[in-house]
Amino acid sequence: MLRSKVLSLVARSGSNRLMSTGTKLTTVEVNDKTGIATLTMNRPPVNGLNLELLQDLKSSIDEIEGNKSRGLILTSSSSTIFSAGLDILEMYKPDKDRIRAFWTQLQETWLALYGSSVPTAAAINGHSPAGGCLLATSCEYRVMVPKFTIGLNETQLGIVAPKWFMATFLSVLPQREAERALNQGRMFTTEEALKVGLIDETANSKEEAIEKCSAFIGTFAKVNPLARSLTKQQFRAADLRQLEDGRKDDLEKFLFFVNQPAVQKGLGIYLEGLKKKAKKQ
Amino acid sequence: MLRSKVLSLVARSGSNRLMSTGTKLTTVEVNDKTGIATLTMNRPPVNGLNLELLQDLKSSIDEIEGNKSRGLILTSSSSTIFSAGLDILEMYKPDKDRIRAFWTQLQETWLALYGSSVPTAAAINGHSPAGGCLLATSCEYRVMVPKFTIGLNETQLGIVAPKWFMATFLSVLPQREAERALNQGRMFTTEEALKVGLIDETANSKEEAIEKCSAFIGTFAKVNPLARSLTKQQFRAADLRQLEDGRKDDLEKFLFFVNQPAVQKGLGIYLEGLKKKAKKQ
Amino acid sequence: MLRSKVLSLVARSGSNRLMSTGTKLTTVEVNDKTGIATLTMNRPPVNGLNLELLQDLKSSIDEIEGNKSRGLILTSSSSTIFSAGLDILEMYKPDKDRIRAFWTQLQETWLALYGSSVPTAAAINGHSPAGGCLLATSCEYRVMVPKFTIGLNETQLGIVAPKWFMATFLSVLPQREAERALNQGRMFTTEEALKVGLIDETANSKEEAIEKCSAFIGTFAKVNPLARSLTKQQFRAADLRQLEDGRKDDLEKFLFFVNQPAVQKGLGIYLEGLKKKAKKQ
Repeated sequence: MLRSKVLSLVARSGSNRLMSTGTKLTTVEVNDKTGIATLTMNRPPVNGLNLELLQDLKSSIDEIEGNKSRGLILTSSSSTIFSAGLDILEMYKPDKDRIRAFWTQLQETWLALYGSSVPTAAAINGHSPAGGCLLATSCEYRVMVPKFTIGLNETQLGIVAPKWFMATFLSVLPQREAERALNQGRMFTTEEALKVGLIDETANSKEEAIEKCSAFIGTFAKVNPLARSLTKQQFRAADLRQLEDGRKDDLEKFLFFVNQPAVQKGLGIYLEGLKKKAKKQ
Repeated sequence: MLRSKVLSLVARSGSNRLMSTGTKLTTVEVNDKTGIATLTMNRPPVNGLNLELLQDLKSSIDEIEGNKSRGLILTSSSSTIFSAGLDILEMYKPDKDRIRAFWTQLQETWLALYGSSVPTAAAINGHSPAGGCLLATSCEYRVMVPKFTIGLNETQLGIVAPKWFMATFLSVLPQREAERALNQGRMFTTEEALKVGLIDETANSKEEAIEKCSAFIGTFAKVNPLARSLTKQQFRAADLRQLEDGRKDDLEKFLFFVNQPAVQKGLGIYLEGLKKKAKKQ
Repeated sequence: MLRSKVLSLVARSGSNRLMSTGTKLTTVEVNDKTGIATLTMNRPPVNGLNLELLQDLKSSIDEIEGNKSRGLILTSSSSTIFSAGLDILEMYKPDKDRIRAFWTQLQETWLALYGSSVPTAAAINGHSPAGGCLLATSCEYRVMVPKFTIGLNETQLGIVAPKWFMATFLSVLPQREAERALNQGRMFTTEEALKVGLIDETANSKEEAIEKCSAFIGTFAKVNPLARSLTKQQFRAADLRQLEDGRKDDLEKFLFFVNQPAVQKGLGIYLEGLKKKAKKQ
């Protein structure tokens, strides 16, 4: 699918080549006409955020930071799921060392994306619950394809979204909306998300979503990159510092919570439900 | 009136009994079908928040926290006043010990309501100035009957709403709206309150307002109660801590301000006005 | 122009005299009917904020604080520019002592305007970029004449708006809008500014803008001035304290940044552009 997209873009624009790189679970394509990098999550079937996908995401964000891209567009190789969020298998009956590495990596990937020095946008071409929504709201702009849902639904799963999920949500939504949605674990349809401001635009296809994200990034064309980057950092500094200064505490709090028997039981029931659902299909 | 409401509900729903408890100045009814508690302020004629009503409110909030209710709906037994706010008689020519107990109780009642672990909503069935607005905005949702007014009108009375009133207001309104309204001591009509987001819905009667509050609380039906409660605490922690850490200072500031001759004079003039108004009626 | 306005107002209102005072670069007129002071910036051609205009602004704000005015309306003597912002000549190849005095004065003028104890409003009768927008958003209300633009466009010039510019912007706009606009250095048309909430009303002329500002200030007529002023201070205390506690750091950061060769080069190119533009006209 990526290959055909590459070919179609090349066919359309003539000189518009794409340089494609990436890791095992992500792809990075830099459009050499616009200079914008598209970072595609590619861990079928649902882009579940496990340790390896989070590592690959971090590597790809670092690569884009380093290759002088004009911007970063985050999207998915799936046609129905942007990202299903944290991989439950990382949290259910976890290995002691791996779960520490997993959460530490989640922190690092968020710090890199939320604090990225390049303009960022999400082309949300599928459902985007929990950690998927965290990734999308960590970007500066969001374009979403209709008939999908987005939200931080942690409370529906018996989990508490940590403070920095909350801060990310509050960078996009007013406090009244953010608190209520997080308490409810509310999933917004594309239309509802647009109305409340959780996304900025809708698009009828992934391709159109990427074009609209590119247009947003294009608004920075005449802006001094250093001044822009320092201004963004200044806006996000308090949120970033809150996690940076409390990473150990945040990790211990997560480990304590996830190891509660009630939470483990809830995750087990949830996984059983997923298995049954999978068998039916 | 409460009795007739109880009877009408019982008549309507058959098995839908209400268990009614409460204190001298408040009533708590738990709908055994929905599991939601309605907390009714009942200090005629205007639910003026004196020491005893604030104590009874705190006791009833604690009772609801303890009885595993699915939610708390705050309302009034009056058909025209939700609550007229702090009882001026507590502040005019005050007894030294009683005014300390009064303000300390106001702090405690707010800490209990704003930080309540159960979902909270206000069925605003009458005017709701000053302290009445504080109670309503301390809840997570507001449904209001038309032709009434709501707002923090302290500056109109020559009083300064303390920092935690301001924080409560800011949890509902954008900063630009909150600052302006507080500076002006603005009272919003039901329609204006809806437009600006100070309330969430309107209802044509108290009964309908309670139904809509119940529907809001119902949105938490499939949500894990512990995760929901911890998420809410996380959102409100900074506001709660600000008062908890500064209760003594807040008390002394209030005492200093309320004992200013100019403030006492203003309260005296206000009370005279109320007496004349009462005589005319 | 001011004189003719004075005469026309006197002619219109009969007893409505204006007492006019001021400094070299500003004029203060107190309408003796409304008790509201109009503070007019008068440094042709563009009200560039140099050391002297900032000093005069501060003096005039202090004068209005001291003369028991009912409010302050900030406007411009130009018919096309409210204020073009910081005077680039203060920052390009600067004198070491003067640039320190300049930035220190900018801090003081902002502290005086943002923290003013009287109600403040801006009658924006021309373009209002960068520092012009800072002055306008430091007021409590904004009325703008159509076909002009307003915004913090610092990143377009390669400059980073300091933290207190950001805080001032955030007192008016939601975080999502504020961050994006500041990153983009976006200039809003009058219509766009109204839609997003950056201004509160539009007016077809400077005179109408001043009338609407007066009407806003009139909403405080029945409000206790001390309670109002203390309430405003409470809302703005954190922003004011952030600069007050960090004035030296803020100055050094500005000096470091402005003296970067790249920034100096950018300012030089910008000044060349202005000169060429001026010659063409």
